[in-house]
Amino acid sequence: MRLVMKFGGSSVADGRRIHHVAEIVSQQRSLGDEIVVVTSALGGVTDKLISVANKLSVVGDELKILEALIKLRDQHTQAAMDAINDPDIIERVEEVIALRLDELEKALIGISHLGELTPRTLDYITSFGERLAAPIVAGAITTLGYEAIAFTGGEIGLITDENFQNATPLEYAEDKIREFLIPALAHCIPVVTGFIGETEKNVITTLGRGGSDYSATIIGSSIDADEIWLWKDTEGIMSADPKLVPNAKKIPVLAYIEAMELSYFGAEVLHSMSMEPVIRKKIPLRVKNTFKPEDSGTLVIEEPEKIDDVVKAITVIRDCALINISGFGMVGTPGVAAEVFGALARKNVNIMMISQGSSERAISILVRESDLKKAKSALKSCFPNIKKEITLRDDVAAVAIVGAGMAGTPGVAGRIFSALGSNKINVIMISQGSSEYNISMVIKDSDIERAVQAIHDEFKLGESGDA
Amino acid sequence: MRLVMKFGGSSVADGRRIHHVAEIVSQQRSLGDEIVVVTSALGGVTDKLISVANKLSVVGDELKILEALIKLRDQHTQAAMDAINDPDIIERVEEVIALRLDELEKALIGISHLGELTPRTLDYITSFGERLAAPIVAGAITTLGYEAIAFTGGEIGLITDENFQNATPLEYAEDKIREFLIPALAHCIPVVTGFIGETEKNVITTLGRGGSDYSATIIGSSIDADEIWLWKDTEGIMSADPKLVPNAKKIPVLAYIEAMELSYFGAEVLHSMSMEPVIRKKIPLRVKNTFKPEDSGTLVIEEPEKIDDVVKAITVIRDCALINISGFGMVGTPGVAAEVFGALARKNVNIMMISQGSSERAISILVRESDLKKAKSALKSCFPNIKKEITLRDDVAAVAIVGAGMAGTPGVAGRIFSALGSNKINVIMISQGSSEYNISMVIKDSDIERAVQAIHDEFKLGESGDA
Amino acid sequence: MRLVMKFGGSSVADGRRIHHVAEIVSQQRSLGDEIVVVTSALGGVTDKLISVANKLSVVGDELKILEALIKLRDQHTQAAMDAINDPDIIERVEEVIALRLDELEKALIGISHLGELTPRTLDYITSFGERLAAPIVAGAITTLGYEAIAFTGGEIGLITDENFQNATPLEYAEDKIREFLIPALAHCIPVVTGFIGETEKNVITTLGRGGSDYSATIIGSSIDADEIWLWKDTEGIMSADPKLVPNAKKIPVLAYIEAMELSYFGAEVLHSMSMEPVIRKKIPLRVKNTFKPEDSGTLVIEEPEKIDDVVKAITVIRDCALINISGFGMVGTPGVAAEVFGALARKNVNIMMISQGSSERAISILVRESDLKKAKSALKSCFPNIKKEITLRDDVAAVAIVGAGMAGTPGVAGRIFSALGSNKINVIMISQGSSEYNISMVIKDSDIERAVQAIHDEFKLGESGDA
Amino acid sequence: MRLVMKFGGSSVADGRRIHHVAEIVSQQRSLGDEIVVVTSALGGVTDKLISVANKLSVVGDELKILEALIKLRDQHTQAAMDAINDPDIIERVEEVIALRLDELEKALIGISHLGELTPRTLDYITSFGERLAAPIVAGAITTLGYEAIAFTGGEIGLITDENFQNATPLEYAEDKIREFLIPALAHCIPVVTGFIGETEKNVITTLGRGGSDYSATIIGSSIDADEIWLWKDTEGIMSADPKLVPNAKKIPVLAYIEAMELSYFGAEVLHSMSMEPVIRKKIPLRVKNTFKPEDSGTLVIEEPEKIDDVVKAITVIRDCALINISGFGMVGTPGVAAEVFGALARKNVNIMMISQGSSERAISILVRESDLKKAKSALKSCFPNIKKEITLRDDVAAVAIVGAGMAGTPGVAGRIFSALGSNKINVIMISQGSSEYNISMVIKDSDIERAVQAIHDEFKLGESGDA
Repeated sequence: MRLVMKFGGSSVADGRRIHHVAEIVSQQRSLGDEIVVVTSALGGVTDKLISVANKLSVVGDELKILEALIKLRDQHTQAAMDAINDPDIIERVEEVIALRLDELEKALIGISHLGELTPRTLDYITSFGERLAAPIVAGAITTLGYEAIAFTGGEIGLITDENFQNATPLEYAEDKIREFLIPALAHCIPVVTGFIGETEKNVITTLGRGGSDYSATIIGSSIDADEIWLWKDTEGIMSADPKLVPNAKKIPVLAYIEAMELSYFGAEVLHSMSMEPVIRKKIPLRVKNTFKPEDSGTLVIEEPEKIDDVVKAITVIRDCALINISGFGMVGTPGVAAEVFGALARKNVNIMMISQGSSERAISILVRESDLKKAKSALKSCFPNIKKEITLRDDVAAVAIVGAGMAGTPGVAGRIFSALGSNKINVIMISQGSSEYNISMVIKDSDIERAVQAIHDEFKLGESGDA
Repeated sequence: MRLVMKFGGSSVADGRRIHHVAEIVSQQRSLGDEIVVVTSALGGVTDKLISVANKLSVVGDELKILEALIKLRDQHTQAAMDAINDPDIIERVEEVIALRLDELEKALIGISHLGELTPRTLDYITSFGERLAAPIVAGAITTLGYEAIAFTGGEIGLITDENFQNATPLEYAEDKIREFLIPALAHCIPVVTGFIGETEKNVITTLGRGGSDYSATIIGSSIDADEIWLWKDTEGIMSADPKLVPNAKKIPVLAYIEAMELSYFGAEVLHSMSMEPVIRKKIPLRVKNTFKPEDSGTLVIEEPEKIDDVVKAITVIRDCALINISGFGMVGTPGVAAEVFGALARKNVNIMMISQGSSERAISILVRESDLKKAKSALKSCFPNIKKEITLRDDVAAVAIVGAGMAGTPGVAGRIFSALGSNKINVIMISQGSSEYNISMVIKDSDIERAVQAIHDEFKLGESGDA
Repeated sequence: MRLVMKFGGSSVADGRRIHHVAEIVSQQRSLGDEIVVVTSALGGVTDKLISVANKLSVVGDELKILEALIKLRDQHTQAAMDAINDPDIIERVEEVIALRLDELEKALIGISHLGELTPRTLDYITSFGERLAAPIVAGAITTLGYEAIAFTGGEIGLITDENFQNATPLEYAEDKIREFLIPALAHCIPVVTGFIGETEKNVITTLGRGGSDYSATIIGSSIDADEIWLWKDTEGIMSADPKLVPNAKKIPVLAYIEAMELSYFGAEVLHSMSMEPVIRKKIPLRVKNTFKPEDSGTLVIEEPEKIDDVVKAITVIRDCALINISGFGMVGTPGVAAEVFGALARKNVNIMMISQGSSERAISILVRESDLKKAKSALKSCFPNIKKEITLRDDVAAVAIVGAGMAGTPGVAGRIFSALGSNKINVIMISQGSSEYNISMVIKDSDIERAVQAIHDEFKLGESGDA
Repeated sequence: MRLVMKFGGSSVADGRRIHHVAEIVSQQRSLGDEIVVVTSALGGVTDKLISVANKLSVVGDELKILEALIKLRDQHTQAAMDAINDPDIIERVEEVIALRLDELEKALIGISHLGELTPRTLDYITSFGERLAAPIVAGAITTLGYEAIAFTGGEIGLITDENFQNATPLEYAEDKIREFLIPALAHCIPVVTGFIGETEKNVITTLGRGGSDYSATIIGSSIDADEIWLWKDTEGIMSADPKLVPNAKKIPVLAYIEAMELSYFGAEVLHSMSMEPVIRKKIPLRVKNTFKPEDSGTLVIEEPEKIDDVVKAITVIRDCALINISGFGMVGTPGVAAEVFGALARKNVNIMMISQGSSERAISILVRESDLKKAKSALKSCFPNIKKEITLRDDVAAVAIVGAGMAGTPGVAGRIFSALGSNKINVIMISQGSSEYNISMVIKDSDIERAVQAIHDEFKLGESGDA
């Protein structure tokens, strides 16, 4: 079997965990599988890099650079020592770390001297997180008897456009990755930095939405992997956020489409952009728990065999704001929606939910609370000739109930809203698109816990699971 | 009391009904009220005028003109004789009818000769319906002892813009109407043609959306009427279309806002545009039944005293089509909604319902079936760089459930969808705007009757009424 | 030889002239040539039609219609009697005139009744000028022994777009014209109404710029005519307007390109749009004088054999206005010209001359005086952030000096400006495009006569000509 | 008298010249005048800085940085020693130079490390030229007995927008400069870096068009200088480029407007943007020769007393390309010019000359040869529905003849073009804007020398001058 295994930040947070990751990999390798490892950065490293770069762009400070480098060196050296048993390999890894830190020092000095932090430089700086972690992971695996080699995204052929901070792989990147990795797999376990690409001119970029997951699925698609495993510190994809619903359960099998609808669920594990290569090639995706490697986790495939559960999971987005626009002249006027959404797009406001009922007299829009100010000012300038009223409320949250079985099953909406009604939870806005896999609603933020629990109970999601 | 009474087409369909209208008016006048009557055209007249004008613009035909004029003369003469008892007054009315028909003849000859039917000419032609009816109505009232005089909208000061077929009153029109009608009320009952205005250059226009209702509410607002009565051939505003729900009941009191949400209900009696002057001046509006003038009908006011019924009424719009657009690149991209609605607006497609759930991956749009073709071609050209999927279905209808009491009453949505679920009716799309007076949904057209009946029963709307 | 002969308004002004036209045609026919005649309307008819239509659209007036019809009937009956000797043919022509006048009467009644004059109706009304003239011309020719038949543009296949008042022939019109006229030429002399086309739905249109000349050149191109003769009441194309320059002389031979540059010269005889079919097919064009049919007139061909005269002619456009825009921030700013001309285009201002020198600090624009107001208001809103100065003067006229020989002949500009200098005539603006066939300049209107005479003298244009 | 003296690059090219500059300044100071000195960078320094920064952004190279710094240190140290006699002052100046070079080193290391050269960083790098020169100039003056202090643009209050590489002073900058310099003038001679400003956040910018001249005129305007002296290595503004016309003579007095028209003349000495503050405040401007400080140079004022010479000077722009666009449908179509210039603006093509004659059939545009490719591709997409022809030639140059006396003097154009004609020089394009101070023309590049000489001779410009 050919596998891509991606380890998230918590799985490689420190040396012990990396050692555990190495054990998982070598254990699987011992079964004869070909494996590509995609790694994230060590715990806290990316944030630390961004923070120091930002500070240096405002006030140059050689001491701050030194301090940051020392901390990073200590953190990674310690991790190497914890992860790797063989002193020779530790030494080699420490050399690589030292070289990378030299490179980082120069970049930080550059920022410090020029007082400017461009998107391009920020991509370069943040790339050091994964580029420092990969050699340690590779060293740890090698110690266990299987040669592993660290590569950057650019080295394996992950060529992207020049849209720094949010780069997209070019079409021919998959060909380049295949050409590089297939021969490499014959003699080693490649350990690839997730999240990082390179332009055609060899300038480092970072992938936008989806990050390291996207690296893993692009690589999986390039080498026609049999499965892609996303390792996390949770049991898999859950029926609800366990912080909200204590009896939330792991979902054993999900359809791609459901996983995408759930993309906001918990740490945004499955951004829909990163699903694209997987769906295109119909590669099974598995979300597994590094603490329970023997557990089958959640399997995401095109069409699960039997869909008995109409509702699979419930997701929540907090910190939302609701905008309601109404006015006499809006009725039956083609172009009202176009003007509203055009104004919001020009101010770069992302629309989370839209609802316009058949009376055509009002449009309701849900946005992130952080976009509310921009949205308000954008809407003020719309329809100068129409008496309109704009009302806002920012004490709301969005809830989405997801399940492919909802399509064509009458009564699901009734069960959902009855469950809410019995609990005296008022529903402020409802939107069900024609995909029918998803009913979204807006409720008061203070009602969220009770609402999610009520729906979770109604559909007995706490009792499901592959026990 | 100062009243505006507007009689719809069915109330003045023929001479007998006009006589009945005259009795209603004089009966009310005898109580000492000041009354302005707004009249529609006789039964079938407007359609006949449009039809003959269209035919003549294609093929000129003097015989067809003659034939049409004879029919109109006969219809109106007969109506005059049936409506009016006094031969002198009948004679005077017939003279006016003859003069108007002469004018119409010339216009029809004009169309016939030039082979062209412009919006301006069409407004002129359709104005004859009301202009022929008003003298008969005035004559019938006069016969009963109260002098009534027929006026056109232009004559009383209803000045509009030059947007033929869909004219809007100018701001100062209300001042002109007041100046004209207040003195007139002192010595007569003005009978005003509904639906008709005039530009500042004295060219006849027709009001757009709302028509004669709009004339009535503008006049009511101008003269600070105490109430505005819209006379129809139904009992008032009903809880549902009686053709769909046999036990539908009259609603005794409604809020303005509910009436507007119901604006599509039955014959579009209360277009929201025509509500504007009423809401501005807080004038009570009454929908009354010409066949039961003693019945209080439906009273529409700003804030009904007690709102005990959470759901007031159910409306249906048939012949709809549902469009669903989805694609990977759409997620979290500000501007997707703007592009979609911009494209639709440029093709003049009216949006009836919009739904976009929190996964941000798809937008669903409900349009009239007649706009489906335009909508499809508009959407094809959107996002050329994004792989997108557009699906369509045209076997659907929209249902709106309306009630001001729905706001803040948990459980309403649950009751609605449970009722549908028990009846195995699948809900394809749901949209509830933040106005909370309205839940709109899309279901299969073939499910409509069962759906409306089920909700009607759930909320026991058949048992309400002012019995 | 296959000829298209187009007779201008002055050539068919009345019956005597039409008789003369018939003699010219039959004389040429007797030489064995195939001839298509394109005719204009009788003297003053088109203006009369427009004037009465306009008046009737404001105030309907049956008497005015009658009066107009009687005048037109008398004018055309008299013309028929003067042009045609054979009483039978006169009778037949009078019948046709009577039928057309009946048709016109209806159209005028239509306008009178509807009070509206659309571009479509105006095209229909003005078409009667040519449609009344063609039968008389055909009759006059028939009397002289060659059967001639009158056709409208639509009848021969001149199909246009629906851009009323300024219609353009559709691409396949030439095929339709060929199919119709080639067989017709075998047995008659077709007399075609100039200036008039028809949409695909048989609604009459009028050609825009170029009018009857355009009809003639389209027909000439369609039937691969050997020559196209444009008959006028002048000797041909003149070296200058004889009203300005008494010793102006006829130009015997001109290149197409020169004729186009001269297109404004005298009554706009050769609008460049109407030159397009001629240039495409390289058909020689001849401007001839109906009063001197034996004179060779002016021949317009692709490349005249020898170009000895560097300057051929001088044209003048009066009633111009000069706009000068200058400002500091304009220098070297790409987009200044775009903004200026964009603003003018949105207000529909036609640009006659543009001049911007190498200092890039100012742009000068010549427009028609009638466009000055629009231009001023358009320019005020340009570059709100740049301190700019806009100056205007409206006492100016444009002079263009034309001659293909100017290209590559050093010293022409020197002779022109020296001639002006010696006469103390100040040149306000100069523009010579890279076509080098044309030097345009702006001078004070009060200097025009002296300026044109001076240049005319300098190049001895009064001595040229094929005397 | 209060003077601003700006010394160009050649005037401060090395230490000897700086010493000479110091003598000029102190000589003038000894007469009691208040003086602000504006200085450029030493010879070749700015180019060297740009070149090394560009190289380092591609390949980081510590040696190259060192090499550049050593060269710059040597050049400026040598200059200090040559310019200044007092060893103490030399030492102090060398200290400042060393500090600045340390700062530069860091910036170069930054570029080298980050591999990126943003406009902001480029402004910072190029600022070192002036910032290294100013202390030397100040030291040299101080040695001669008048205390001089070096300031940067930012230090004196020259606040600009953030448009790096082409910054514009903010409106309130003049107030800040006045507040700073007036008190400073009381006790020293301020030596200000030309060409350099600073944003409100203290980030260094460089002024765009006009550079150090602009600094000088802004300062002059701020402190209400009596005169502004621009010191160069030429005699003043010349009647023509002496390389083209050996007997070119200095022009003693010029009007502002003439100077602006001549702005392209020789090293772009008087960019029109930098004239704006001078014209606003009517401050006389003097172009003087550092090698002949006693010579009065060229005085530029608002209105020279007597304008006897109609033509003052001739300028030339080589490496131009001519584009001619023609087509049938263009005639009389408002919007043609807008579309052409809009397309060119979008591609950032700067228009040097425009000519469109009265035939409205063609537009000719002169652009820089370097813009030709962009221009061609921009124009191809214009008017897709019109058959158009675009011709190009790139063997041309532009000549502008300038003189305020040309306005209203008939015969000037005649003399110009006669002179060219006698010399068999063909004029390809002519444009005279309504400012009448300027006739521009396009001729073959190979004719340029003869053309300029001929016009120069015709107007006896070689005999003028204040000899």
